[in-house]
Amino acid sequence: MSRLKAAIIGGGNIADTNHIPALKQLSEQVEIVAVCSRDFSKARALADKHGIAHAFGETAELYRQCTPNLVVICTPNNLHYPQTMEALENSCHVFCEKPPAVKAQNARDMADLANKKGVVLAYNFQLRQASEFALLMRCKADGLLGDIYHIKANFLRRRGIPGWGYFTNKAMQGGGALIDLGVHVLDLALYALGYPTPEQVIANTYDFIGKAGGKGLMGTWDPATFEVEDAATAYLSFPNKASIMLSASFALNMQAEKDRNLDIFGSKGGAKLFPFTLHTELAGELADIQFPFLEETDIQLKNTSAFLDACLGKPSNVCTGEQGAILQEIVERIYQSSTR
Amino acid sequence: MSRLKAAIIGGGNIADTNHIPALKQLSEQVEIVAVCSRDFSKARALADKHGIAHAFGETAELYRQCTPNLVVICTPNNLHYPQTMEALENSCHVFCEKPPAVKAQNARDMADLANKKGVVLAYNFQLRQASEFALLMRCKADGLLGDIYHIKANFLRRRGIPGWGYFTNKAMQGGGALIDLGVHVLDLALYALGYPTPEQVIANTYDFIGKAGGKGLMGTWDPATFEVEDAATAYLSFPNKASIMLSASFALNMQAEKDRNLDIFGSKGGAKLFPFTLHTELAGELADIQFPFLEETDIQLKNTSAFLDACLGKPSNVCTGEQGAILQEIVERIYQSSTR
Amino acid sequence: MSRLKAAIIGGGNIADTNHIPALKQLSEQVEIVAVCSRDFSKARALADKHGIAHAFGETAELYRQCTPNLVVICTPNNLHYPQTMEALENSCHVFCEKPPAVKAQNARDMADLANKKGVVLAYNFQLRQASEFALLMRCKADGLLGDIYHIKANFLRRRGIPGWGYFTNKAMQGGGALIDLGVHVLDLALYALGYPTPEQVIANTYDFIGKAGGKGLMGTWDPATFEVEDAATAYLSFPNKASIMLSASFALNMQAEKDRNLDIFGSKGGAKLFPFTLHTELAGELADIQFPFLEETDIQLKNTSAFLDACLGKPSNVCTGEQGAILQEIVERIYQSSTR
Amino acid sequence: MSRLKAAIIGGGNIADTNHIPALKQLSEQVEIVAVCSRDFSKARALADKHGIAHAFGETAELYRQCTPNLVVICTPNNLHYPQTMEALENSCHVFCEKPPAVKAQNARDMADLANKKGVVLAYNFQLRQASEFALLMRCKADGLLGDIYHIKANFLRRRGIPGWGYFTNKAMQGGGALIDLGVHVLDLALYALGYPTPEQVIANTYDFIGKAGGKGLMGTWDPATFEVEDAATAYLSFPNKASIMLSASFALNMQAEKDRNLDIFGSKGGAKLFPFTLHTELAGELADIQFPFLEETDIQLKNTSAFLDACLGKPSNVCTGEQGAILQEIVERIYQSSTR
Amino acid sequence: MSRLKAAIIGGGNIADTNHIPALKQLSEQVEIVAVCSRDFSKARALADKHGIAHAFGETAELYRQCTPNLVVICTPNNLHYPQTMEALENSCHVFCEKPPAVKAQNARDMADLANKKGVVLAYNFQLRQASEFALLMRCKADGLLGDIYHIKANFLRRRGIPGWGYFTNKAMQGGGALIDLGVHVLDLALYALGYPTPEQVIANTYDFIGKAGGKGLMGTWDPATFEVEDAATAYLSFPNKASIMLSASFALNMQAEKDRNLDIFGSKGGAKLFPFTLHTELAGELADIQFPFLEETDIQLKNTSAFLDACLGKPSNVCTGEQGAILQEIVERIYQSSTR
Amino acid sequence: MSRLKAAIIGGGNIADTNHIPALKQLSEQVEIVAVCSRDFSKARALADKHGIAHAFGETAELYRQCTPNLVVICTPNNLHYPQTMEALENSCHVFCEKPPAVKAQNARDMADLANKKGVVLAYNFQLRQASEFALLMRCKADGLLGDIYHIKANFLRRRGIPGWGYFTNKAMQGGGALIDLGVHVLDLALYALGYPTPEQVIANTYDFIGKAGGKGLMGTWDPATFEVEDAATAYLSFPNKASIMLSASFALNMQAEKDRNLDIFGSKGGAKLFPFTLHTELAGELADIQFPFLEETDIQLKNTSAFLDACLGKPSNVCTGEQGAILQEIVERIYQSSTR
Repeated sequence: MSRLKAAIIGGGNIADTNHIPALKQLSEQVEIVAVCSRDFSKARALADKHGIAHAFGETAELYRQCTPNLVVICTPNNLHYPQTMEALENSCHVFCEKPPAVKAQNARDMADLANKKGVVLAYNFQLRQASEFALLMRCKADGLLGDIYHIKANFLRRRGIPGWGYFTNKAMQGGGALIDLGVHVLDLALYALGYPTPEQVIANTYDFIGKAGGKGLMGTWDPATFEVEDAATAYLSFPNKASIMLSASFALNMQAEKDRNLDIFGSKGGAKLFPFTLHTELAGELADIQFPFLEETDIQLKNTSAFLDACLGKPSNVCTGEQGAILQEIVERIYQSSTR
Repeated sequence: MSRLKAAIIGGGNIADTNHIPALKQLSEQVEIVAVCSRDFSKARALADKHGIAHAFGETAELYRQCTPNLVVICTPNNLHYPQTMEALENSCHVFCEKPPAVKAQNARDMADLANKKGVVLAYNFQLRQASEFALLMRCKADGLLGDIYHIKANFLRRRGIPGWGYFTNKAMQGGGALIDLGVHVLDLALYALGYPTPEQVIANTYDFIGKAGGKGLMGTWDPATFEVEDAATAYLSFPNKASIMLSASFALNMQAEKDRNLDIFGSKGGAKLFPFTLHTELAGELADIQFPFLEETDIQLKNTSAFLDACLGKPSNVCTGEQGAILQEIVERIYQSSTR
Repeated sequence: MSRLKAAIIGGGNIADTNHIPALKQLSEQVEIVAVCSRDFSKARALADKHGIAHAFGETAELYRQCTPNLVVICTPNNLHYPQTMEALENSCHVFCEKPPAVKAQNARDMADLANKKGVVLAYNFQLRQASEFALLMRCKADGLLGDIYHIKANFLRRRGIPGWGYFTNKAMQGGGALIDLGVHVLDLALYALGYPTPEQVIANTYDFIGKAGGKGLMGTWDPATFEVEDAATAYLSFPNKASIMLSASFALNMQAEKDRNLDIFGSKGGAKLFPFTLHTELAGELADIQFPFLEETDIQLKNTSAFLDACLGKPSNVCTGEQGAILQEIVERIYQSSTR
Repeated sequence: MSRLKAAIIGGGNIADTNHIPALKQLSEQVEIVAVCSRDFSKARALADKHGIAHAFGETAELYRQCTPNLVVICTPNNLHYPQTMEALENSCHVFCEKPPAVKAQNARDMADLANKKGVVLAYNFQLRQASEFALLMRCKADGLLGDIYHIKANFLRRRGIPGWGYFTNKAMQGGGALIDLGVHVLDLALYALGYPTPEQVIANTYDFIGKAGGKGLMGTWDPATFEVEDAATAYLSFPNKASIMLSASFALNMQAEKDRNLDIFGSKGGAKLFPFTLHTELAGELADIQFPFLEETDIQLKNTSAFLDACLGKPSNVCTGEQGAILQEIVERIYQSSTR
Repeated sequence: MSRLKAAIIGGGNIADTNHIPALKQLSEQVEIVAVCSRDFSKARALADKHGIAHAFGETAELYRQCTPNLVVICTPNNLHYPQTMEALENSCHVFCEKPPAVKAQNARDMADLANKKGVVLAYNFQLRQASEFALLMRCKADGLLGDIYHIKANFLRRRGIPGWGYFTNKAMQGGGALIDLGVHVLDLALYALGYPTPEQVIANTYDFIGKAGGKGLMGTWDPATFEVEDAATAYLSFPNKASIMLSASFALNMQAEKDRNLDIFGSKGGAKLFPFTLHTELAGELADIQFPFLEETDIQLKNTSAFLDACLGKPSNVCTGEQGAILQEIVERIYQSSTR
Repeated sequence: MSRLKAAIIGGGNIADTNHIPALKQLSEQVEIVAVCSRDFSKARALADKHGIAHAFGETAELYRQCTPNLVVICTPNNLHYPQTMEALENSCHVFCEKPPAVKAQNARDMADLANKKGVVLAYNFQLRQASEFALLMRCKADGLLGDIYHIKANFLRRRGIPGWGYFTNKAMQGGGALIDLGVHVLDLALYALGYPTPEQVIANTYDFIGKAGGKGLMGTWDPATFEVEDAATAYLSFPNKASIMLSASFALNMQAEKDRNLDIFGSKGGAKLFPFTLHTELAGELADIQFPFLEETDIQLKNTSAFLDACLGKPSNVCTGEQGAILQEIVERIYQSSTR
């Protein structure tokens, strides 16, 4: 079977250190044919560094000269929508960085177009490939959890407002801690529940610490350009009465440097990750179960591989365009609720 | 100054081990003159055991024969309302066990009548007197927390469905884990915020484990008579955008045997209890602060003393009738939200 | 149903603190009618202390005057045989302290006579009632262990040669660390395997530390009267190739003050006690399982109750006369092997 | 003094990473002149990699063309015997990988021939050079242990069946966990006792987990080709009543990933390794002694150096041909006992 | 042998809970015949409580009516001198509470008079009887420490200014943290060195925290009546160049609630207590030694017994009058140095 | 602004790994123009390795050919004085390794000449730049410590007598543990107190372990050439009654491998480093404060930068010539006191 031809759109760090290396490790299935960046010199440098044949400064040129089977979008959040739409129009499979978009309708349109064009649209939520999450899903499948009815999902940093990039720029990012960090654990929680759409969403966002400015564990940030939330809290209630409590922060006066975890409560057992522990009954007694030898995995490699599986029509647990649309709608409802 | 005359209504364990011993330790200010229980033999036995002059089987008789200045209500939840109203009508100060009532309107009527009669109505939320909570309020007053904007409040048990009493009887208790356990940490969270009324309340309750029956850490319970929630989760959003995430359980598939804690997040610092730790910045660095020598206190004695202070017109941090009405309304909104 | 009548033979500590209190807690089923001790004053004092009607200085007198349904033997090891035989001849059920006897043939005769007379003969190996061992047997029954093929059983003390009693007197005790301590874990190991008779037994006993004399954690002992082994090690090989490694010591140059544990290895899982942990595979991964809330039990009360169940023809896990005979034969083979 | 000339027989990993680097570090005393492997390309590659002058595909050729003073045998277990015999016949000192052979008589013949030819035969049990074992022997020499009378020796893996190589091939390896792992701790235990021959050996071997197949911590193994024991347990009893309890496993349902330890019990003190602790009496009290700064050593380098010392007639603690014969006989008796 | 007759002088807590119970446990050797307190009612009550025949309000009366063989002085520090002198004049052995006196010359006179009268004068430094200190002296005697050349001795409290008694009264106590706490560890350090007299003493005392007043872990103290040092530090240099660094505090901004320890450094080994650890070389390696089973002792009982041994002419390690005079002189030199 | 020209004097390890790399990182402000070593080949090699233009074998030649603005002295202690004086005479700023000199008068002369010549003289006590010490000084400035009145300063090694170099050579080093290690923590303690001159100094030095010879954690040392102290203890008393207890050792029978710490006691709070903790009162309670995210810093780089700041007339916390003279005088008084 001939290899798929991939093009990379975006010349930043995530392309360089995540997507390109993963694709190169999967060279039996895929070949990177081009890199494209609005800053052509970045595209050029990246192509040279990784031995990629073509570099472009405009996507139109890319599609004109190459005919990629798939495109990886690694640009700022606000470009995900137009670039994905263009790629889909060119009948390319799309592997887009998270979050899907900055507006719910955009994510919906992206999913619809992919559907219409009969190509794969997927988002790069790599935590789905973590050994702990895979084990959670196996435990669920084996009935060790029973019905899952409540999840607490947190992605918190104590003082982790990035002092670089455009993480605090609302127009480019679409938001702050929620859209950058919270979406990771929200995606896992939704997936564990079967990706339902919530009946009710209520939320609040905060910016006390961000607006005060200061020095943190990820550099010094400027309060004058801090336009996003430094923390968000939300409650999602689903038709079957399941619920999610979600918290995300760039900055919060807590003890841990960072805290990324989920507590999953089911009728038969509960699980906590990361790391993974299981709490249930066994042989008639309350039992705590640890799995001391879970293997560490290269979650980017696994997620890229899952995307390729999807492109090849194989079973895959990559985040689909449809799931991305549901998630993006929730994000939008959270921001709307908090600006009531 | 002459001593206040107190009467005890209710002949159960809480009267015997909490309220009567506390009042006796405060004998310079108060004298217990009577015990009343619908089961007269219980009233008799309690009076004899503690050297109290009078025992009654009916409250009407109590008010006819004695003229107490204050009444302590230690009966099942559904009796708090009628007995408090009767006491207030008799111009007595009332110290009522938690929760205030089983309906929001009842608690509202109780507060209004106390106000009209010019007497004190207070509820026995003893955790307010815990050293850790007192320290939290001092930290807040000293500006160490700044503006408090989010609180996570949990009162969770892994398998703590009581195998005795009427804790699972909906009519008598008004609910389960929320009204029995959750109200304690809800009261603390509201007090820390200034006891505001929430704009929005969203919640869900669960009974998977309770309905399954079984053996737990507080005995064996009967699924057939399990009528209440074994777990409740709620989100409260306040006009100033502050928020509370509340969780309460009799049974939940978690690791700890029980978990009663609050995480308070403010603009200057955050605190966690119990035990108490403070997380803030000091000398330009992120700092974690522990208070290793907080004294253990007899929280019932302190709360009874705070009630007497209120009766005597002194400053007091006991839970007021007004606060109880706010709290009860929230409890009702939680139950309503979860039965949508 | 009328209560069983019990007589206690032996006026020492084990009667006073273990057997009599347990029987009294089971007073709905059994009544203690007499105490007998060769030292009549001891019998008298014990009877008075516990409100027992009769005291005797000779067992013959006991049987002449009372007609007990059951007898509890709490005398030195070398008296277990004659006193049990006498009791069985009098058609009494017998609950005999461990070890069964000091000779294998004695224990065999005891079992045979009980069988012939149609009464219950049982030995007081209380650890069978420990929650951890009960859980082990439930795990085995639930298939969590698969086939058990190897057990390491240890009952070790670092410096625990008793400085009192006749624990170092060979004639009265029949041996040292093995017959006093080792038999407890040997009984558990055999029970876990289905109480098979070993094909081969090889062993060694030691007395270096005992013969040196000294001060230990259970007093000062006299090397001149130290006639028993201070340590014993043995290997038991069974027809189905299962094996037991057994170690027992009064004194051994090790770190722990004492170490009483079993490692049970099965084809599906392994368990370790005390405390209890389970090591197996779950959801496709190696798993370590803890049971944090095992209840502490009064193992003497449970074992006495199990003996009464046996007397009443109910299912019981008390150590039977037959099992005692197997165990005693193993003990004898261990001592023989070590004196080759 | 001129340097010894060494030849390497076997072109696998142990030659490449252990023996050749060690010999090269000892270049003042020894020079590697040739590498020989039945797969000549391996010999060639190894010689090139390490700058060794000659490579051979047959040992006969090696001896014909070179005249090595010493030979290092790093081939599969079943080749140790013929290749050592050939080397001895050529009057070479031999440093043979463990185990000595796959049959006891072979190891005996090897020792006898070395003796007859007046050359050194030694086996590469490197753990003898571990700092902890050296300290044990110093403690013994200083009288801190007194008479050693019991040793528990374990080399256990939880799920460590190698998924590569011929470790599960009975014909090539001669056995499984015992002959691959157990011999290491058996050698140490025997050495600590003065390398006596046991009076009695009793043992059992198991293959439940191996025969079931599966995924472990050292890869995935095929149950169809699993011909060896996954676990072995044995008891060795010596003429002076000292005893060894030996356990070895490739797979066992235990907690630790692996457990390689010895408990040495003596009349004056006991030691545990690895790591090393000493338990004895000091100043009249029971004492636990730790040695926090034991240096980490390159045990292969030290053992190779010890072999060279032996070749040069200097004192050496390397495992001798005679000791290897004793050990191999014990291994054979263990396998025989378990197949009774 | 007839029993010694003892009289107690002082009716406070230390008499009631330490000395009288200890003497009563030693009733084979000693009988308490009288209690004397300037507050006669206290003497009366104490005598009644403990079944002592006589009570007195004046010591003169005591000596007139009874003829005690020994006297125990349990009065405020400033009374130790006159009462001891009177007792010695009456030819009584004297067991005096620590510190010996409030002036060095007083302690010298007390020692001289005891010597002249041929009776025993001893001070109640009970820590000498602690198992850890006894072990230290055995280690020293066994040569495990070599020459001791430096000791760090600390008796520190973080906030332990007593809120009761006259601990902060300079006239009655003679000082603060040094004379109340520091003398305990100073006595041990001096004893370990052979009780030499220092060549040089340099010291400083502080009262910052005491003068500030406040609430601590031993109550609330009044800065207005705080006349003593809250902390003292001193360096003692001896003729053989050994040295002691001494620190004592009632209040110090440190982490531990209290810290009572000695670090003893010798040429062969070093020891730390409390608890006791030994650091030396063994078998050619640096070794850390713990003694996990040191028995807890009733140090008052042992010290009273040691005093009686001295009275009976037996070997004794109780603090002698001569040692007390040396210690008191050092205390005085410390206070003098700090007021330079 | 043109760059400063620097010359390095001394061709050893500290020049190679500390000073030259630091200066090269600060290449915007400074340029290394020459290296000088009495062993010219060392100077040559170092210059080549680091791309430095000139190498010299004599300092006179250096000053003749180059005109450095500043000189870094990295030679043995006894050369600090003559080389610094020569550099100052040549009007160079001098950055001299610690200790300042081997005699107090030398350090005084050095400071005076620098003052006279109007150039900067500084010593390389890099620990001043440690984050923990910087935080201490900020805490002091913020009033969190109040008045500092006592400091315990330790720089101890258990067996850290260097087996190489001239660390045990008295003539070249001027002393042992004190002058090599102790001066680091002495400098910090003095700086925290405002660098006062002590009123009294009393001290002792020891060499028991050094004179015994042996193997340690920094190699094997020769007792025959061990001329310095292996341990020193000292007490410094200042005019305002503040005090320092100083301990330094190359070898001491203690538990830790090494222990470098300061305990700073103030009227408001106390601090401990390394690591840093603060102990004070907050919100009316005793509080322990940790700073979990102190950044690790390149203390040599920071100290070199601080020296350059001083050269450029900017504020700087580098150790000044004046401070060095005070410290050196204390060192001399310590050695004098111990040889009384």
